[in-house]
Amino acid sequence: MIGVDWGTSSLRAYLLDDDGTILARRDSARGILTVTDGDFAAVLQEEVGAWLAAGERRVLLAGMVGSRQGWVEAPYLACPAGAEEIAGRLTRVAFAGADVLLVPGLTAEDADGTPEVMRGEETQIAGIALAEGIACLPGSHSKWATVAGGRIVGFATYLSGEAFAALRNGTILGRMMVEGPTDPAAFLRGLARAGDAGHLLHHLFGVRTLGLFGRLGGTESASYLSGVLIGHEVRAAVTPGAQVHLIGAQTLCTLYATAIAQAGGTPFLQDSDAAARGLARIGRTAAWM
Amino acid sequence: MIGVDWGTSSLRAYLLDDDGTILARRDSARGILTVTDGDFAAVLQEEVGAWLAAGERRVLLAGMVGSRQGWVEAPYLACPAGAEEIAGRLTRVAFAGADVLLVPGLTAEDADGTPEVMRGEETQIAGIALAEGIACLPGSHSKWATVAGGRIVGFATYLSGEAFAALRNGTILGRMMVEGPTDPAAFLRGLARAGDAGHLLHHLFGVRTLGLFGRLGGTESASYLSGVLIGHEVRAAVTPGAQVHLIGAQTLCTLYATAIAQAGGTPFLQDSDAAARGLARIGRTAAWM
Repeated sequence: MIGVDWGTSSLRAYLLDDDGTILARRDSARGILTVTDGDFAAVLQEEVGAWLAAGERRVLLAGMVGSRQGWVEAPYLACPAGAEEIAGRLTRVAFAGADVLLVPGLTAEDADGTPEVMRGEETQIAGIALAEGIACLPGSHSKWATVAGGRIVGFATYLSGEAFAALRNGTILGRMMVEGPTDPAAFLRGLARAGDAGHLLHHLFGVRTLGLFGRLGGTESASYLSGVLIGHEVRAAVTPGAQVHLIGAQTLCTLYATAIAQAGGTPFLQDSDAAARGLARIGRTAAWM
Repeated sequence: MIGVDWGTSSLRAYLLDDDGTILARRDSARGILTVTDGDFAAVLQEEVGAWLAAGERRVLLAGMVGSRQGWVEAPYLACPAGAEEIAGRLTRVAFAGADVLLVPGLTAEDADGTPEVMRGEETQIAGIALAEGIACLPGSHSKWATVAGGRIVGFATYLSGEAFAALRNGTILGRMMVEGPTDPAAFLRGLARAGDAGHLLHHLFGVRTLGLFGRLGGTESASYLSGVLIGHEVRAAVTPGAQVHLIGAQTLCTLYATAIAQAGGTPFLQDSDAAARGLARIGRTAAWM
């Protein structure tokens, strides 16, 4: 089968054999925001047409391609849900010459009834075949999912990554920042700051004052801010003793692993092909034509 | 004397008699960011030249005009500090035809040594002549100052206002927002959300999901976000029973008063001429030439 993790800003396609082995892959920047006039079919043809021409007929799509801004809106499936429930609720998409199915996103609710949503992460979580524990997918909208009995029973999203970018680009904090790689010492200082009793909105101003007094350099301040934000997120999401499985880009997951360990949790770094394995797992029990 | 509250984006000048009565006033948009080539003297002449021509010779400046980006950098004065200590640490500025003095900003330290700064707010706080209690000056960088024995003993800044603007302008939360006046019901819903156990970074994502599910309209979502941010700030800064004196724009202070009351504090709205009264009070004991 062909599995496609089709997100907002990128597309990852995999040619998979029956046991989930990746036979071929394509990474592209054709995220759903780049698709013009709703012509998702043309983009899919460009990306996986060669595999279709070679005879493959089953295509499983996951991610924001199933959102209101995507190809077809796939209704959310309510938690608790695991790979089997997901495979039973796929949406068929009209496409000449292949059987194309769409993975539903998941929804959950906070205690006060505020809704939660994910699209794509459910497939990555299915890919690590976790029985019990917490899965964390750091990013613009970081997801923290609680898994029990092999199913996602609930989850919470933190806007940390997007807040970081907005604070860097749109506030006085960004004015003194100089682009560069992560400064580990400054990141750790930010993490430590997040661990004190102060509130995030107060800690943010400290990024400014430390710079003003020459105690945080231009190349350090972005890493410090990152430490403050990730530190706050992780301390809110992790209870001591929690086992947290990190799925995502290696660099970001390593920063989260440090923060999780400092908060008393145990981090496990999962490899970056969780989406492919999740697509294969869901595809195995899907109702293909 | 002439008193000038000269901030980043605005300038307010007052002609004051000896007991602090405002005889005349000018509000202008000539904040320090609009001053070109460092020619602060020309802007001051434009704004208060008529009063100088009428014979007034004493000019007291407060606010960001005393910062590194201002006219002359006036060194910070460490807390605890009150109007008398401030009046004893003014910086003289060269200006033809008048005696111009600059109010110092204040500095303090968090428990972990992170510095805190204010410029201008110390003068507004001096203007309400508070003996004991908390002064709150809401804004881009909200200040919460603890006053004891008539002096500011410590303070903390929250980046709430600037974070609001950055989140609205630079994240997915702003995409569904429609400009309009504050929606009181939506603001209260945001406040209530801030009072639950979740973290701010998680509550931010709820602005998105409530909109996605049609439970928060375009004209409501900015007010809801404002309630979430102000609610978090106020709950971090106010302990039940605290008496909080609000200084600033009426509309914003009213929102903060609601949040303070909900957090168990007692809000007092101070009028908007605190800066004028503070300038007069500091000016009375200043060492004029």
